[in-house]
Amino acid sequence: MSRISTPISIAAAPAASKASLEAVNNLLGTVPNLFRIVANSPKTLEGYLALNGALGQGALNAQTRERIALAVAEVNGCNYCLAAHQYLGSNLAKLDEAEIEANRRGTSSDEKAAAAVGFAVKIVKYRGKLSDSDFEAVRSAGYSDEEIVEIVGHVALNTLTNYINEVLGTEIDFPAVETLAV
Amino acid sequence: MSRISTPISIAAAPAASKASLEAVNNLLGTVPNLFRIVANSPKTLEGYLALNGALGQGALNAQTRERIALAVAEVNGCNYCLAAHQYLGSNLAKLDEAEIEANRRGTSSDEKAAAAVGFAVKIVKYRGKLSDSDFEAVRSAGYSDEEIVEIVGHVALNTLTNYINEVLGTEIDFPAVETLAV
Amino acid sequence: MSRISTPISIAAAPAASKASLEAVNNLLGTVPNLFRIVANSPKTLEGYLALNGALGQGALNAQTRERIALAVAEVNGCNYCLAAHQYLGSNLAKLDEAEIEANRRGTSSDEKAAAAVGFAVKIVKYRGKLSDSDFEAVRSAGYSDEEIVEIVGHVALNTLTNYINEVLGTEIDFPAVETLAV
Amino acid sequence: MSRISTPISIAAAPAASKASLEAVNNLLGTVPNLFRIVANSPKTLEGYLALNGALGQGALNAQTRERIALAVAEVNGCNYCLAAHQYLGSNLAKLDEAEIEANRRGTSSDEKAAAAVGFAVKIVKYRGKLSDSDFEAVRSAGYSDEEIVEIVGHVALNTLTNYINEVLGTEIDFPAVETLAV
Amino acid sequence: MSRISTPISIAAAPAASKASLEAVNNLLGTVPNLFRIVANSPKTLEGYLALNGALGQGALNAQTRERIALAVAEVNGCNYCLAAHQYLGSNLAKLDEAEIEANRRGTSSDEKAAAAVGFAVKIVKYRGKLSDSDFEAVRSAGYSDEEIVEIVGHVALNTLTNYINEVLGTEIDFPAVETLAV
Amino acid sequence: MSRISTPISIAAAPAASKASLEAVNNLLGTVPNLFRIVANSPKTLEGYLALNGALGQGALNAQTRERIALAVAEVNGCNYCLAAHQYLGSNLAKLDEAEIEANRRGTSSDEKAAAAVGFAVKIVKYRGKLSDSDFEAVRSAGYSDEEIVEIVGHVALNTLTNYINEVLGTEIDFPAVETLAV
Repeated sequence: MSRISTPISIAAAPAASKASLEAVNNLLGTVPNLFRIVANSPKTLEGYLALNGALGQGALNAQTRERIALAVAEVNGCNYCLAAHQYLGSNLAKLDEAEIEANRRGTSSDEKAAAAVGFAVKIVKYRGKLSDSDFEAVRSAGYSDEEIVEIVGHVALNTLTNYINEVLGTEIDFPAVETLAV
Repeated sequence: MSRISTPISIAAAPAASKASLEAVNNLLGTVPNLFRIVANSPKTLEGYLALNGALGQGALNAQTRERIALAVAEVNGCNYCLAAHQYLGSNLAKLDEAEIEANRRGTSSDEKAAAAVGFAVKIVKYRGKLSDSDFEAVRSAGYSDEEIVEIVGHVALNTLTNYINEVLGTEIDFPAVETLAV
Repeated sequence: MSRISTPISIAAAPAASKASLEAVNNLLGTVPNLFRIVANSPKTLEGYLALNGALGQGALNAQTRERIALAVAEVNGCNYCLAAHQYLGSNLAKLDEAEIEANRRGTSSDEKAAAAVGFAVKIVKYRGKLSDSDFEAVRSAGYSDEEIVEIVGHVALNTLTNYINEVLGTEIDFPAVETLAV
Repeated sequence: MSRISTPISIAAAPAASKASLEAVNNLLGTVPNLFRIVANSPKTLEGYLALNGALGQGALNAQTRERIALAVAEVNGCNYCLAAHQYLGSNLAKLDEAEIEANRRGTSSDEKAAAAVGFAVKIVKYRGKLSDSDFEAVRSAGYSDEEIVEIVGHVALNTLTNYINEVLGTEIDFPAVETLAV
Repeated sequence: MSRISTPISIAAAPAASKASLEAVNNLLGTVPNLFRIVANSPKTLEGYLALNGALGQGALNAQTRERIALAVAEVNGCNYCLAAHQYLGSNLAKLDEAEIEANRRGTSSDEKAAAAVGFAVKIVKYRGKLSDSDFEAVRSAGYSDEEIVEIVGHVALNTLTNYINEVLGTEIDFPAVETLAV
Repeated sequence: MSRISTPISIAAAPAASKASLEAVNNLLGTVPNLFRIVANSPKTLEGYLALNGALGQGALNAQTRERIALAVAEVNGCNYCLAAHQYLGSNLAKLDEAEIEANRRGTSSDEKAAAAVGFAVKIVKYRGKLSDSDFEAVRSAGYSDEEIVEIVGHVALNTLTNYINEVLGTEIDFPAVETLAV
């Protein structure tokens, strides 16, 4: 049971959140618990969807975005987000099982993607305090200034959902994932 | 010098970011470095401003928002954000010097605000992993479900700016703040 | 609401736990939630009470025991235990408010007690990995081998209750305590 | 050499500890250094043996208990306990080498046991601060309330021996184990 | 008792270390345990004294050097070095009691020195991973490139002695210091 | 670009650093950026070279020294040093690829070397706070008192270069290395 109530349907959500939830429903064909629990604050839902939507139209492709999401969720230890992004990574971004495990371990079989994932992991682990060589590593892998800003944006976006789900205890409505051996 | 270029003016920014920067200029009368450096990615700027704008219209008042911003910036060790929110906290939210130091130390002279600030600090420190008693502490201080979701939203919003400024090395264009003694 | 059920009375507890809970009731005149939630496992309750009882008859006096309990609960961030030991420290061990805050901050106004409290805090923070000078500090404060072993025992005893209450979400039935400013 | 003296025999131990040590000797056919060094405090020895004995009669089987002991000792970095539980895990609980390494890495080849081991590791790493999804993971693996309380109890029991051995420098009298590669 | 033997006199030290120890004796009028225990490795002693000597002739004055030493020893939790540098800070560098406590807490009553001390503390805490604003803070306080390199050098020099004393258990032969309340 | 200027040649370095840089050039046939950036402080360069030189003549062979350097650089997350010591480890110390990865993961295929590497890693991770069993592990692997002191010396030497390169942002002039999967 989540720590605050999760509206059972769009109809049961606060009025000011209904349009946002309808938009989610139109996009995904369903409204996962994450969106319904955030709907307790219409303005947080609105802001989250706007950030998510904007970054989705950015310079990074869906595979890189899912890889970063998996890596960040692993460092932050968010089971809900791991389950969600394992599902999305597999079904939407077509990442295979080995790649998903690599992403959770902070790397990738794709060399350029590995740099983005490794950069994202360092941002989370060191709370943004990176050395110049950490920074040069992502740049020398070929990422532009625009893309680098977006990687940081994706780290923050995923931190938002990680923290929401961990703090509020969102019930997991995606297939569960296994804990990685250390 | 920042790690990626900071456009010297709105005119010098990527075309797709100009409208967003104009909006910032209209609101603040100036465009602080943070917004100009994020402008390297128009979509990240758009998403960040939308999240910031939505949360600004939420259920938490300006004082509580600034207190959370100060507390989160302190835990994440972001000098730019400390400088910005000390300025905004003092000039806009009218927090006095003692209150600002209390906020940076994770508490407040206002008992209810202290609960929100303490909750925000725990979310950052433990990456969202809170015990039920941590959660009950904010609820029993009188915060509604809507407000609790928004506190988490503000933590994420500030994490976004903290990480951006730390990773990109945004040059500080607010009066500098002193390091707190441990 | 706790994560597992807390029996509402001794009668509602598992049969094998009733004698243990009666003993607690005879001793304290009430059965705090901690004991009732542990009662879900009669053997854990039995073992915990035995460890608690044995250490209570050991070489350390009640004041030192409460000081260690406060310091350990603070490092582990256990609100239930802070509330319980602030109550017990004040009412049973007659520690005044300033001393209780000092204990939570890892020290004591009593020089010898400060060494025990500081030693306990280091054990928790470094998970038992202490340097020889950390060890010599408690010995040179005048603690015997017997007392040193008992300090470690009290650290473990309090870790047990800290973890139980944090993991299970025991509802706090002692007067709440305030968060310390960092 | 340990930091406090380790009685060379039962006869050399404090009088009030002799009965406890005899009981250990009857059970194990020997008195490992851990028990003899704890014997410096008869009350700590008494309490430890009572907690250990009670949990040994609880709802978790010997294999699960040893798996948890290995995982907790690894996180706490206690060489003595790793050596002891590798020996006991292999000889008493009949865990094979691959399973013992899996346990030290926080998982298990047995799916249900993996949940208990992963839960125990999270309790230690986050000092009891688990999210609801961390908690649901162990429950959905099939553990009852009684068993969940006992897992926390075993974490505390092993923390007690880990801290004792690390703090006091108990000399290892079990076959040494190798450091795991990160 | 230290973990390796501490030669009782210069005569008792390895032959290849005697000249180095004589030099220490000529300088300080005594040979503190630190130097004698390092003398077990003549080459480590030689290298340590050379690094220490060179940095002592550098651009930072004795007060700043002692402040950094106190701050670094506090973060690393080295009681021997705290005792040594409280003695040296007080007697050689003429720092008063309040300043020494400020230094241990990572700051200074002297504004420029506070920047050096804060910079040193961040280097230790984040293992060298500083943001550009952390770096700008020390530069804008007026430190030259030469001095900045030397601050890092002093952090490393003190890390060397901190680790030596913690790992080897050097017996403290300076007046002991009190633990700071958190 | 590094945070302070890196002299482009020996001629461009501060006068007092030229002799030291010439010595490096004679030894290595080139002057890597690390030495040139440290040359901003002639005394730090002098002290660093003296410590490095002395330890190089000590009791540990080149292979063990490189293994420790790789392990320490990995824990401290220093990309420059990883690149340098992967190059030196491969070309000078003739460590093969599998051994270099093992060293970065805190172990070695050579049993005795594994103990030194594991000991070095623990010193860095726990900032010198080791339990007696951690200490006994390196001694029982066959290292003498002299060698143990030198291992701590090498940890400090590498901490110096790690911190210098991370803080100053030395540009990497060795072949880059890949991030290890967690």
